[in-house]
Amino acid sequence: MGKVKVAVNGYGTIGKRVADAVTLQPDMELVGIGKTRPSYEAVRAAERGYRIFIAGSGTKADFAAAGLATAGTAEEMIAAADVVVDCAPDKIGRENGKKYQAAGVRAIFQGGEKSDVAEMSFNALANFDRARDRKTVRVVSCNTTGLARAASVVVPHWGVESWEATIVRRAADPSESNRGPINGIVPTFQLPSHHGPDVRTIFPDLRTATTAMVVPTTLMHVHVNHVRLTRPPADATAVFQRFRSTPRFHVFAPWEHVDGTPQVMEFARDRPNGRPDMMENVLWEAGIRVDGPDLYFFQAIHQESIVVPENIDAIRAMFGLAEDGATSIAMTDKALSIPHP
Amino acid sequence: MGKVKVAVNGYGTIGKRVADAVTLQPDMELVGIGKTRPSYEAVRAAERGYRIFIAGSGTKADFAAAGLATAGTAEEMIAAADVVVDCAPDKIGRENGKKYQAAGVRAIFQGGEKSDVAEMSFNALANFDRARDRKTVRVVSCNTTGLARAASVVVPHWGVESWEATIVRRAADPSESNRGPINGIVPTFQLPSHHGPDVRTIFPDLRTATTAMVVPTTLMHVHVNHVRLTRPPADATAVFQRFRSTPRFHVFAPWEHVDGTPQVMEFARDRPNGRPDMMENVLWEAGIRVDGPDLYFFQAIHQESIVVPENIDAIRAMFGLAEDGATSIAMTDKALSIPHP
Amino acid sequence: MGKVKVAVNGYGTIGKRVADAVTLQPDMELVGIGKTRPSYEAVRAAERGYRIFIAGSGTKADFAAAGLATAGTAEEMIAAADVVVDCAPDKIGRENGKKYQAAGVRAIFQGGEKSDVAEMSFNALANFDRARDRKTVRVVSCNTTGLARAASVVVPHWGVESWEATIVRRAADPSESNRGPINGIVPTFQLPSHHGPDVRTIFPDLRTATTAMVVPTTLMHVHVNHVRLTRPPADATAVFQRFRSTPRFHVFAPWEHVDGTPQVMEFARDRPNGRPDMMENVLWEAGIRVDGPDLYFFQAIHQESIVVPENIDAIRAMFGLAEDGATSIAMTDKALSIPHP
Amino acid sequence: MGKVKVAVNGYGTIGKRVADAVTLQPDMELVGIGKTRPSYEAVRAAERGYRIFIAGSGTKADFAAAGLATAGTAEEMIAAADVVVDCAPDKIGRENGKKYQAAGVRAIFQGGEKSDVAEMSFNALANFDRARDRKTVRVVSCNTTGLARAASVVVPHWGVESWEATIVRRAADPSESNRGPINGIVPTFQLPSHHGPDVRTIFPDLRTATTAMVVPTTLMHVHVNHVRLTRPPADATAVFQRFRSTPRFHVFAPWEHVDGTPQVMEFARDRPNGRPDMMENVLWEAGIRVDGPDLYFFQAIHQESIVVPENIDAIRAMFGLAEDGATSIAMTDKALSIPHP
Repeated sequence: MGKVKVAVNGYGTIGKRVADAVTLQPDMELVGIGKTRPSYEAVRAAERGYRIFIAGSGTKADFAAAGLATAGTAEEMIAAADVVVDCAPDKIGRENGKKYQAAGVRAIFQGGEKSDVAEMSFNALANFDRARDRKTVRVVSCNTTGLARAASVVVPHWGVESWEATIVRRAADPSESNRGPINGIVPTFQLPSHHGPDVRTIFPDLRTATTAMVVPTTLMHVHVNHVRLTRPPADATAVFQRFRSTPRFHVFAPWEHVDGTPQVMEFARDRPNGRPDMMENVLWEAGIRVDGPDLYFFQAIHQESIVVPENIDAIRAMFGLAEDGATSIAMTDKALSIPHP
Repeated sequence: MGKVKVAVNGYGTIGKRVADAVTLQPDMELVGIGKTRPSYEAVRAAERGYRIFIAGSGTKADFAAAGLATAGTAEEMIAAADVVVDCAPDKIGRENGKKYQAAGVRAIFQGGEKSDVAEMSFNALANFDRARDRKTVRVVSCNTTGLARAASVVVPHWGVESWEATIVRRAADPSESNRGPINGIVPTFQLPSHHGPDVRTIFPDLRTATTAMVVPTTLMHVHVNHVRLTRPPADATAVFQRFRSTPRFHVFAPWEHVDGTPQVMEFARDRPNGRPDMMENVLWEAGIRVDGPDLYFFQAIHQESIVVPENIDAIRAMFGLAEDGATSIAMTDKALSIPHP
Repeated sequence: MGKVKVAVNGYGTIGKRVADAVTLQPDMELVGIGKTRPSYEAVRAAERGYRIFIAGSGTKADFAAAGLATAGTAEEMIAAADVVVDCAPDKIGRENGKKYQAAGVRAIFQGGEKSDVAEMSFNALANFDRARDRKTVRVVSCNTTGLARAASVVVPHWGVESWEATIVRRAADPSESNRGPINGIVPTFQLPSHHGPDVRTIFPDLRTATTAMVVPTTLMHVHVNHVRLTRPPADATAVFQRFRSTPRFHVFAPWEHVDGTPQVMEFARDRPNGRPDMMENVLWEAGIRVDGPDLYFFQAIHQESIVVPENIDAIRAMFGLAEDGATSIAMTDKALSIPHP
Repeated sequence: MGKVKVAVNGYGTIGKRVADAVTLQPDMELVGIGKTRPSYEAVRAAERGYRIFIAGSGTKADFAAAGLATAGTAEEMIAAADVVVDCAPDKIGRENGKKYQAAGVRAIFQGGEKSDVAEMSFNALANFDRARDRKTVRVVSCNTTGLARAASVVVPHWGVESWEATIVRRAADPSESNRGPINGIVPTFQLPSHHGPDVRTIFPDLRTATTAMVVPTTLMHVHVNHVRLTRPPADATAVFQRFRSTPRFHVFAPWEHVDGTPQVMEFARDRPNGRPDMMENVLWEAGIRVDGPDLYFFQAIHQESIVVPENIDAIRAMFGLAEDGATSIAMTDKALSIPHP
């Protein structure tokens, strides 16, 4: 078959990254992006040569006044696509889903939508094969992706009796200037938090209990995990070697002097190619401990980018573009300049 | 006996609060405070009528140039005291301890010193009686005090099989302008963190595992606790009622609209009397959950003030000023305008 | 005459402070406060013994469910008052004004309302006498109050040819957890900013040009002023001595080690009496420079409290409770424990 | 002549960017970088293929233990270079200068060093020609570069009677986790600030007065400028058109919805090529006003990158690689993917 035609509906934090990622894949082509109004982000889209389709309440006149060419309406974009990656704000995706269904086009939704928005919830390491030939797939949220990736390593190798995680969330993305708190911590009064059940959309049998809070930073989330194992490894070295040999994990060594998320994202900004993103789960050798059956580890999650390669793999699974998950992940990572073990 | 003569050596975040607290007690008097150099904090000390004794490398000339009267040297202050509350920066307390011992004066140290700095580690709810007639006592740190208080409720009532806590720490106190991070999260690469062992200086048999990280806020620490109970209560209501009926706990109701630490500290600033401090462990009804044998709860800890009433109680225990802990706590709380159940 | 009966309509950042301040004045009594819904702030109001009147869309049932007694409706409160201090959110005050007028009660509005909401705009140092016998008065905003106070010193003593100020604004109050930015600077795209014209509601002939931006802090605003003088003083010493001898200015000396707003607000928290507020304009000796005809100085403005004494003085002016501004200011400052030169 | 051989001594915020920039120039080659210890930044240097030379107290064993190859000592790097760009921390550059002189190699210093560290202070738009054939050149600091660029437009076109600027500085770079304040504003008690005199190292006759403060953000500095002009333009449109037609200025339009520095740096992260940097002075149409002879404008300065193209142009000037500044600037901007009018 020819390249899969991908439309990206919604051009915010996730949408713009998915659009870039699609253009880098050898087996996909970008139909265009759906955007409501002209903005600095539309300027960059135009510079990248993306065709802009007018979504929502947007008008051609608004774009024209800004000197930005448009290629039609979101409906026209959808009609021209094999699959739409919906990157609209939370809850809007579900509404948009009706249009995709009416147009007979397949769709990928993001984790801001509830799991019943699609036939299945997806993570490339965990359940690639289950997405084969699906009409609709949901890529789980950034935090759930981080947990699901980690579970994909821990569950098969050492067995999990119970998994607890505290999720310390960034309060806003770097481009948002109207969200707080500026100085304070806001607990999430949902105990356990929704992240545990969301992980079970992928690992139905995993015993999880998660808690969450919001803190005044824009860079990354940080998880503290405590996993009770059934077949524990000898020591932390066995653990970080295993993570290091798995795609989509990055483990920092002590001599790298990466004290926290400021240095992680500096490392991302220093990437020789591509966006200043950290699409891998980030761990630290010094942040892993095995104590009898108990595994403790920190991981940092770049909320803006971690789901991007997962969206690409979801497309490949839905359209049978790769024989298995490992093949797709390797293709995606190569295209996105993610180091692959 | 007459009033116990208390000297406060070191006049920073903790020292100034302990000095204020001493002056409010009917059975104690403040000899004075030890301070190294003139500063805006010394101005306030003078306004409050505290006698300033020159500590460390300070000189009388420096204070005189600032128009601040001094009452002698720290050595003279120590000699005039029955007990010194050492509030010097971490690690300095241990050095100072030699002077106290040489002067034959009793001493209280703070939790920044290791536990062997004193004969015992103290928390008023947990082990008041153990401090009777001691020459040296260590009041545990703010986070350990918060955990020890909570354990004082949970252990006797519901039994604890294991206690896990993630401690999300404020990066600086409000008056510090040279500490970061400004934007980022810094994990504490000690797994488990030192807080667990520190709690066991008070509850030797408690099975704890704690993890920690630092976030960019100045207001309060927040703990997420997961406790596996041996005799669990029926539901969260039983838990928050129990906490609410225990001194040094404050539990917010949902209709109070306290979303996080910004509102908690606003509530503290609105106190009708006394400093804008929150000397109680702060919990939320909505932030407590009982799930079979598992108890989950958030608590916020005001790092600047939570140990202040504990220092007062420690003095009372050392000098036999109260027949038991409950009596001392009631006296202290009344004097400090802490609501008492 | 008897005490002036004051109602405070709106119990947020300003309202709660004005209510406290009223209760401390010998010539005023607090009728009560208007509040829409129960909250942690209502709890403190009740603890302070304030009568709560139900405002806006609030219901008696809501307060009753929270265990909070109410004394009637806001309309009843207004009817019982000689003057209402309106502390409702911006723009609501104007609406409320109709009720006050209908009830035949005098009213004070805050600076969030446009100047035509009242007969005159007020600052105690600048134009106390103009408020005599007024039915309606507007106390200018925190930043304008800070500028007007400073102008009250500079204009008469050294003459002003032109006054430029850059106003670096705190993004949120400490109790607000939903406002940003968390990391970034947001310029105010109004050049000059509205502060200059607002100062001219008090100093009509002052040539001002102000600019503004918002930064991620909650503590205080900071102004940088550059004033071209017509009769410049000899040096900065003359300037800080003059400010220091004027009520409602606090000037820090270098040996106090007050580097910025974190230490200023720590100084406020260390007040021996009253709220942890800084009701004075805050200057630094080291932050003043005279260079020929040019005066440069920094001042920090505590947005939460600086207008509080001005509201009290406005009441006194409206009701003829003091023979002149100096007398009223002295009374207010004594009652509020503001040091008075 | 062949390519100029450039060594970059110091591989922090500026050094790594200069090294990248050198490798992109057709007329330069990178000898290597000087680095003291292995770190995550050294990992990226190695990935980019840069030869690492061991500087300061570093040892080959340390790098070897980290698995990082080294190419020799900093002294060897210097000996192999035509010019060293010194990017060591402030004050170290002056020390290093002795080595460069001893080795007979030319040198460029950064603005953290005082102006007498080199023969002249440099800005490409302002004084390219003055750097011809120099042995030592100092590229002025980020804030001074921003002001000097702006002066390069304003002075010749509209004449300057006086230039005032308030410089609101970011407190830390994004990768720094140990600098504050977290919540507060710290005025710079130097009135006027050093930026004014530093601008006069480039525009000796410019009448400047600058003030500064530090705020808790990591992204960009923001300047508010007030310039009294001798030949003012008709309106703000004339001003932003002029800036827009000058290299190294970027002017945002209102419809782009760039409210402040968070969106500016998001725009930088969305660059189709190169680092997520904003090497231009950033202005806003809405942030410019002409009022008679008075020009007001905001500009945002990306402290990490703005001097990078200036370092490249300085090399070109010193070695006669371009016939004039405009030619060099065009070459540099093309190589660095900076849009060029």
